[in-house]
Amino acid sequence: MNTSSALLVADLTGVAVFAASGASAAVAKRLDIFGVVFVGVVAALGGGIFRDLVIDEVPPLAFADWRYAATAAATAAAVFWLHPQLARLRTTVLVLDAAGLALFTVTGTLKALDAQVPAVGACMIGMITAIGGGLGRDLLTGEIPVVLRREIYAVAALLGAVAVALLELAGQATTGPLTAAAAGVFLLRLVSLRRRWSAPVPALRPPRTGTRGPQL
Amino acid sequence: MNTSSALLVADLTGVAVFAASGASAAVAKRLDIFGVVFVGVVAALGGGIFRDLVIDEVPPLAFADWRYAATAAATAAAVFWLHPQLARLRTTVLVLDAAGLALFTVTGTLKALDAQVPAVGACMIGMITAIGGGLGRDLLTGEIPVVLRREIYAVAALLGAVAVALLELAGQATTGPLTAAAAGVFLLRLVSLRRRWSAPVPALRPPRTGTRGPQL
Amino acid sequence: MNTSSALLVADLTGVAVFAASGASAAVAKRLDIFGVVFVGVVAALGGGIFRDLVIDEVPPLAFADWRYAATAAATAAAVFWLHPQLARLRTTVLVLDAAGLALFTVTGTLKALDAQVPAVGACMIGMITAIGGGLGRDLLTGEIPVVLRREIYAVAALLGAVAVALLELAGQATTGPLTAAAAGVFLLRLVSLRRRWSAPVPALRPPRTGTRGPQL
Repeated sequence: MNTSSALLVADLTGVAVFAASGASAAVAKRLDIFGVVFVGVVAALGGGIFRDLVIDEVPPLAFADWRYAATAAATAAAVFWLHPQLARLRTTVLVLDAAGLALFTVTGTLKALDAQVPAVGACMIGMITAIGGGLGRDLLTGEIPVVLRREIYAVAALLGAVAVALLELAGQATTGPLTAAAAGVFLLRLVSLRRRWSAPVPALRPPRTGTRGPQL
Repeated sequence: MNTSSALLVADLTGVAVFAASGASAAVAKRLDIFGVVFVGVVAALGGGIFRDLVIDEVPPLAFADWRYAATAAATAAAVFWLHPQLARLRTTVLVLDAAGLALFTVTGTLKALDAQVPAVGACMIGMITAIGGGLGRDLLTGEIPVVLRREIYAVAALLGAVAVALLELAGQATTGPLTAAAAGVFLLRLVSLRRRWSAPVPALRPPRTGTRGPQL
Repeated sequence: MNTSSALLVADLTGVAVFAASGASAAVAKRLDIFGVVFVGVVAALGGGIFRDLVIDEVPPLAFADWRYAATAAATAAAVFWLHPQLARLRTTVLVLDAAGLALFTVTGTLKALDAQVPAVGACMIGMITAIGGGLGRDLLTGEIPVVLRREIYAVAALLGAVAVALLELAGQATTGPLTAAAAGVFLLRLVSLRRRWSAPVPALRPPRTGTRGPQL
C-alpha cells in the first residue's frame, strides 16, 4: 500500500470513528434517525471541510469524493441500529473521539504541509481538522465543547501535529513513524481521561454574570 | 425571463423569506432593531456564503452583489416594523422557513452542479445551502436547531436536491420542472409539520450526563 | 512606518486585544490554561480567518504568518497568569473587545477593498472581521452573543467600515484619518455601553416556545 492510499484509509477510518462518535452522542440525546445521521456526518466531515477551505482545496474532499459522505452516513446509520448498551454510550463516544482525534491530526497536518502551508500554520490546521468535528457535534447536541473540558484534548492533537511536522522536516514521514504519532495522540488522550489529568485553573471565583448587556 | 434571471429571482426570493424567518424569530426573542436585522441577514445569507466558499466562488455573492445584502436587510427591517400578530409569529417563521428551504435547495444544487461538483457532493451542498441559514438563526437565538427536531427537514432538502441533480442529468433542468421540485420540498416540509411525521428514535433512556469531563 | 507595516501593527494589536478579551472571558468561566488559550486564540483569529476565506487569501494569514498565532497564544497565556482582579474582569473584556472591534473594522475593510470586493460587500466583510472573534468567544463560553445585546455593537463596526470605504474612495485612506475612524468606533462603542443606549424593541410579549417541534 503506497503512502497516498494509506492516507486515504487513515482518513476514511477517521471519518468512520468520528461519525460513530457523533451518532452515539445523538443517540444519547434521543434524536431520530435523521438527526443521528446529521450529527454523525457533521462530526465526521466538519473538520476536513474546514481544513480544505483554508488550504484552498475546493470543493472540499467531503463533497468531491462520494466515499467520504457515504462512509459517514452509513456508519452513523449503523450506530443508530446497532448502538451499544446505554450505560456504555458515553465511554464509546470518548474512545471513538480519541481515535478520530489521532487520525485526523496526522492526515490534516500532512495535507496542510503538502499544500505548502508553513509549519506553524500546518500544525494549527492539523489540530483544527482533528477538533473541528467534535466541536460541531458538541455545539449541535448542547454539550460543553470537549475542547474546553478539563483534560488534555486540543493539546494532544497539537503535540501530534508538531511530531508530524518534525517527521516531515526530517524526511521520515512514512507510514511507520506516522502511525506511531497517531498512536501517541490516542494514548495521551485516553490516559488523560483515565487519570483525569488536569491543567491549572485560575485562582479566583467566577464573577456574577448578568444576562443582559452590562454597564461599564 | 431566461434561466439566469429566473435563478436570480428565485435566489433573492429565498433571501427575502429566510430574512423574514430570521427576523420573526428575533422579534419573538424581543431583540432590538439591530439584532433583528442581524439575525435576519445571517439566516438569509449564511447558507449561500457557505455554498460559495465550497464551490470557490469568492467573494461570495452575498458580498459581491449588493442586492443580496439589501434584500435581506430591508426585509428584516420591514418585519421588525410590520411584524404580524404575536400569536402567529411562530407559524410565520415555520412557513417562511419552508419556502426558503425549497428555494435554496434548488438554487444551491444547481450552482454546485454548474461549478462541476460531482452529483453526490452537489446534493450535499444544495442541502447545506438550504439548511445553513436556519441553523445559524437557531444557534443565535438559542433555539434547538430546526434540523434536529423531529420532523422531515434536511431530508426534504436532500430529496429536492436529488431531484434537481436527476433533472440536470436528464437535461430537463428548466424552469417548470425545477419549480415543481421546489414546490415538492415546500409541501413535504409543511405536511410533515402538520402531521407531525416523525422518524424512529432509539429505544433507550438517555444516560445521565455530567457537565464535567467524565472519566473512562 | 509605511502603510503596510502600519496595517500589520494595527492587525497584530487587534489580535492581542481580542486574545486578551477571549482569555479574560475564559478565566471568568474558570477554564484551565488550555481552555483559556484556546478561547483567546479563537477570539483573536476567528474574524480574520473568515475574512481571508471570503476574499480568497488562502491559507489565511492566521495560518500563513506565525506571528498571528504567537501573538494570540502569548497574550492569552499572559492574561491567564496576570489576570486582573476578579471584580474588573467583565469590564476588562468589554473595553478590550471595543478596542479589537475598532482595529479589525479598519483593517478588515481595507483588506476587502484591496481584494477588489465592491464597497457594500467590503463594509460587510469589515464588520464581520470585527465581530466574528467576539461571536466565537461568546458561543464557546455560553454567553449571549455581544452582537445581540442591547447596545451599539455591529452598528459601530458598520459605521466605521463605511467611513473607511468613503476615505478610500476619496483617496484619503492614510494613517491619520484611518486612526480617527478606529477611534470613532472605539468611542461610540464605549459611550453606548456607558449610557446604555438602546434601540427600539418590538412592542409585544414573547410567545411561549416549546422545546419540541411545534405543529402548524
